[in-house]
Amino acid sequence: MGPLGPGARLGILGGGQLGRMIALAAARLGVKCHVFAPEGEAPACDVAAAATRAPYTDEDALARFAEQVDAVTIEFENVPVETAAFLEPRTRFAPSADALAVAQDRVAEKSFVNGLSLQTALFAPVSTTADLDGALKRLGLPAILKTRRLGYDGKGQARIKSAESGHAAFAAIGEAPAILEAFVPFVAEASVIVCRGWDGAHVAYDVARNLHAGGILRESVVPSGLSRTTEEAARAAAFRIADALGFVGTLTVELFITAEGDVLVNEIAPRVHNSGHWTIDAAETSQFENHVRAVLGWPLGSTRRTGDVVMRNLLGAEAAEWRALAAREGARLHLYGKEEMATGRKMGHVTEVRPRQM
Amino acid sequence: MGPLGPGARLGILGGGQLGRMIALAAARLGVKCHVFAPEGEAPACDVAAAATRAPYTDEDALARFAEQVDAVTIEFENVPVETAAFLEPRTRFAPSADALAVAQDRVAEKSFVNGLSLQTALFAPVSTTADLDGALKRLGLPAILKTRRLGYDGKGQARIKSAESGHAAFAAIGEAPAILEAFVPFVAEASVIVCRGWDGAHVAYDVARNLHAGGILRESVVPSGLSRTTEEAARAAAFRIADALGFVGTLTVELFITAEGDVLVNEIAPRVHNSGHWTIDAAETSQFENHVRAVLGWPLGSTRRTGDVVMRNLLGAEAAEWRALAAREGARLHLYGKEEMATGRKMGHVTEVRPRQM
Repeated sequence: MGPLGPGARLGILGGGQLGRMIALAAARLGVKCHVFAPEGEAPACDVAAAATRAPYTDEDALARFAEQVDAVTIEFENVPVETAAFLEPRTRFAPSADALAVAQDRVAEKSFVNGLSLQTALFAPVSTTADLDGALKRLGLPAILKTRRLGYDGKGQARIKSAESGHAAFAAIGEAPAILEAFVPFVAEASVIVCRGWDGAHVAYDVARNLHAGGILRESVVPSGLSRTTEEAARAAAFRIADALGFVGTLTVELFITAEGDVLVNEIAPRVHNSGHWTIDAAETSQFENHVRAVLGWPLGSTRRTGDVVMRNLLGAEAAEWRALAAREGARLHLYGKEEMATGRKMGHVTEVRPRQM
Repeated sequence: MGPLGPGARLGILGGGQLGRMIALAAARLGVKCHVFAPEGEAPACDVAAAATRAPYTDEDALARFAEQVDAVTIEFENVPVETAAFLEPRTRFAPSADALAVAQDRVAEKSFVNGLSLQTALFAPVSTTADLDGALKRLGLPAILKTRRLGYDGKGQARIKSAESGHAAFAAIGEAPAILEAFVPFVAEASVIVCRGWDGAHVAYDVARNLHAGGILRESVVPSGLSRTTEEAARAAAFRIADALGFVGTLTVELFITAEGDVLVNEIAPRVHNSGHWTIDAAETSQFENHVRAVLGWPLGSTRRTGDVVMRNLLGAEAAEWRALAAREGARLHLYGKEEMATGRKMGHVTEVRPRQM
């Protein structure tokens, strides 16, 4: 697919902070963004040249949107596959509807990953209580029950310590299609972010070690402190996944690292990722800019890291500390312009950058 | 003046690339921008939450604008002083109308600078041909004739090598109020960018050495290669000017450096400046972000330089090289989203960043 020039109009499905940071990166390159988002408060719209507020199922609005832009991408992996499939024949669209479909269903995702000879947690699809009982017997305890679809930030997940708590958790999600995953005794959680162009060229960022609390990312640390072999395995896994999906754009693979240094794929996020926010302040090209470059068909930029970083999310009322954070030496403050400081809501992040040691 | 929080709405007078980069920096901090600009194509509007297209003399539009924002700043020093004076009692406004007035008139500016015991070129105001003849006699040849007002990028300037060419140049500007400046035999042109808060706190960026062609900035290089004494004198001059103006925001002082290392003030730009674009990619806080912080009453951020840089402007058709520039190792490409590639028009810039040597 040939390159679109700097005057290109880039459509973004989704109006959250990831779309906002994609739009800011696109603006640096002279690219005009048009955000399509159903939600009322959409931080991305504040920095975009145009905005459409409509449901993802509104085909008239989608058709108009496709005419007004030169390419469309997503900031949110749960854009309905039907929306992607509707837009794909009408405009340059990346990542593909097929790639989204794989990432949206935890069973399809894990089966796909295993098919590439990459490890995941052991798992079983759960549609009925009988499935659940069989799966609990096979996978053992503890285990994790998750909805197959639409989970994020730990939502729709429960740790199962007994058959009874398994039944309660399945009831709590309304017996929606689910997946039971064996508990992985990991020593670290990590993620690797890669970017792949239409021509198959790809680049990777340094691996981040991630700390979660209550299912929400709190902190990403780079360098990760993991061994070179483990990091190389992580990168190789992400490249294999991106290639197999024919992925175009930035893609993130979340990983479990075991005590033996084994790398298990936990989740594929077919998009820019919270654990890559450090790349704005400490990589030669950010994950957002490389995503825009990939979608538009530009050469990908260097992912070289320019410092050692700790990125911390500002959740809910933590953002009220903006003044102290703005004054802190070496801290780069980012706020997303959200008005409501709900508990656990991602309001911004802070990246602390120190000179690179390794 | 107390701080405005991250939800603040910042008004920007002027819609060019400087306003665009101010808006992008403000967005990082969660601040929503409203651009007020008369011009048809306004690159800043593409990244702002709101825009008003009206002349600077439209008091109804200005009054509405003042009600819709929490603070107003400028990206363009030739915003009429009357506009600033109209807004100043209606909203938090920085820099002040008084500071703009000084910077808009080359005679007032030089007199002000000399009054601070800082050197400028020798100069004389020219209102009539008789003034011009007297000034040419007193200042000698060569000399530079400039309009007192509204000059930028070398426009409204002529180098005078004889009385005849002086008369021709004065006729060419329609005998508008002018200034004759003695030619300064400089060995380098430099600029120093400082930022000053409402509380008088100030920070300075490393001095840039600037190369011009045809009156337009081509390249800024940091570190400047000037002596430590010269750089210290430059910084001290800028702080003295900012303090004397009671300046709030980012202010730039353009300088001539003589063979003896003397520092002469050439021009005050009461705003962020082209020679500070490198700060986006190679300072801990950019000139744009510090400007926003100052206007809103936030603590100023560290100006520490993180690399050695060369910033080159992309003028007119040079921007057509975007693809090669995007692929160049170590180059950070910025494009302003302007549609018309007119000769000499600033379409973007490229910052090449290398590890810091000094």
